[in-house]
Amino acid sequence: MNLILFYPEEMTLESNYVCLQGRRAEHIFNVHRAQVGDVLKAGVINGKIGEARVLNVTNDKIEFSFIPKNDPPEPSNVTLIIALQRPKTLKKVLQSAVSFGVKKFIFIESWKVEKSYWQSPLLEAEKLTEQIILGLEQGVDTVFPKIEFKRRFKPFVEDELSLMVNQKFNDKSIRAIIMHPGNYSKLTDFCYESNDLKFDENILIFGPEGGFTDYEVDKIVEAGCDICSLSTRILRTEYAVMTALGNFL
Amino acid sequence: MNLILFYPEEMTLESNYVCLQGRRAEHIFNVHRAQVGDVLKAGVINGKIGEARVLNVTNDKIEFSFIPKNDPPEPSNVTLIIALQRPKTLKKVLQSAVSFGVKKFIFIESWKVEKSYWQSPLLEAEKLTEQIILGLEQGVDTVFPKIEFKRRFKPFVEDELSLMVNQKFNDKSIRAIIMHPGNYSKLTDFCYESNDLKFDENILIFGPEGGFTDYEVDKIVEAGCDICSLSTRILRTEYAVMTALGNFL
Repeated sequence: MNLILFYPEEMTLESNYVCLQGRRAEHIFNVHRAQVGDVLKAGVINGKIGEARVLNVTNDKIEFSFIPKNDPPEPSNVTLIIALQRPKTLKKVLQSAVSFGVKKFIFIESWKVEKSYWQSPLLEAEKLTEQIILGLEQGVDTVFPKIEFKRRFKPFVEDELSLMVNQKFNDKSIRAIIMHPGNYSKLTDFCYESNDLKFDENILIFGPEGGFTDYEVDKIVEAGCDICSLSTRILRTEYAVMTALGNFL
Repeated sequence: MNLILFYPEEMTLESNYVCLQGRRAEHIFNVHRAQVGDVLKAGVINGKIGEARVLNVTNDKIEFSFIPKNDPPEPSNVTLIIALQRPKTLKKVLQSAVSFGVKKFIFIESWKVEKSYWQSPLLEAEKLTEQIILGLEQGVDTVFPKIEFKRRFKPFVEDELSLMVNQKFNDKSIRAIIMHPGNYSKLTDFCYESNDLKFDENILIFGPEGGFTDYEVDKIVEAGCDICSLSTRILRTEYAVMTALGNFL
């Protein structure tokens, strides 16, 4: 926990007094070993980052006064579109990409996505929020990402994705790339070549564990996306995503 | 397991017959649900990748004949030098970077490395081998990486690292970069700028959880390394490493 994250409603507005119980208090007491008078890094969800001056701390409760200082860091200019993953992988993808600063996720249906994944309790708002908070605490950021789920592949790609790729919001340049194993330009080379025209927004698209079908790849390319490969090797999804994000620091 | 990996001595030389027991058999039986006659991807450690034709398979034993086909994929041109991590993180770093194709790791001492990490059973050859095999199975590769441990920071950096950076083996160009949080060029920009002269070999250096000390950073830069930052955010080591590797696809 590199940042103590709390909701605005957990702070009294007059005195900036915050009292937290449970996981956060326990972590600060046992891992940070914080003591009265210590100054820790804290942040209000969707708000400022600043200093927490510890007033009182025990195993199950921490009280501090919060002094807001800085804006949260710049968001990443990458939107991730990922075929829905098994819950264990979804957790890792969310935590790691949120810690990197990704602010928009779209999880989509694909032929090789196991149907049961759509029933996972992890997809409930509360469970997603837990993963997001862990990612923000790690990455020292306060701003919640938007997460959408699209259970119908064809309408999403034909209608929504092609709109996302082709329309320019506020004159922003947008590029979308599907990452697919095969004899394509490597993402790094592709980015080098187009370095003269860096894009304001980038959309990266990843398939399910078994990969997109040929039909799905064709559909995504038809919607206006470029196609690149990451490696001749097969990487776990969470590592493939971070490897790709590394080209958009 | 995207590849069934076995030692040369597990195969009879005359008939290319292989019999495996334990973890691999169990996985192939329960997860792959392989049946007699199936053809699976297999590889000999430090040798060829090819086809395993299943002769017999049960919960605890698989027998197949192996037909070698292709060489393993090209190795990554990145050497990783990383301050020793806590065992849980070390496992993840090894598995993920091995699956990416990294063939040389040097784990080093640093002021903020907890002394107990050097006593971890994970540092024993047998335990390291387990992690390496998991990484190779994931990445569909057969070639074992070299792993070294350097328990004395100063002699390593002053003598060995500066030699690695400054001497050119077989006329290969070598560049070393220390990844350090701060107001430095981002790795991606740095790589873009030096794109005209791509290097044959790259050395990437990562600090411990709490970061290198200023003294350590100075020493590493004195040894001839450039300095770059990955992000204003703090990433878990395994994700930071993959993010950096993404610039060297």
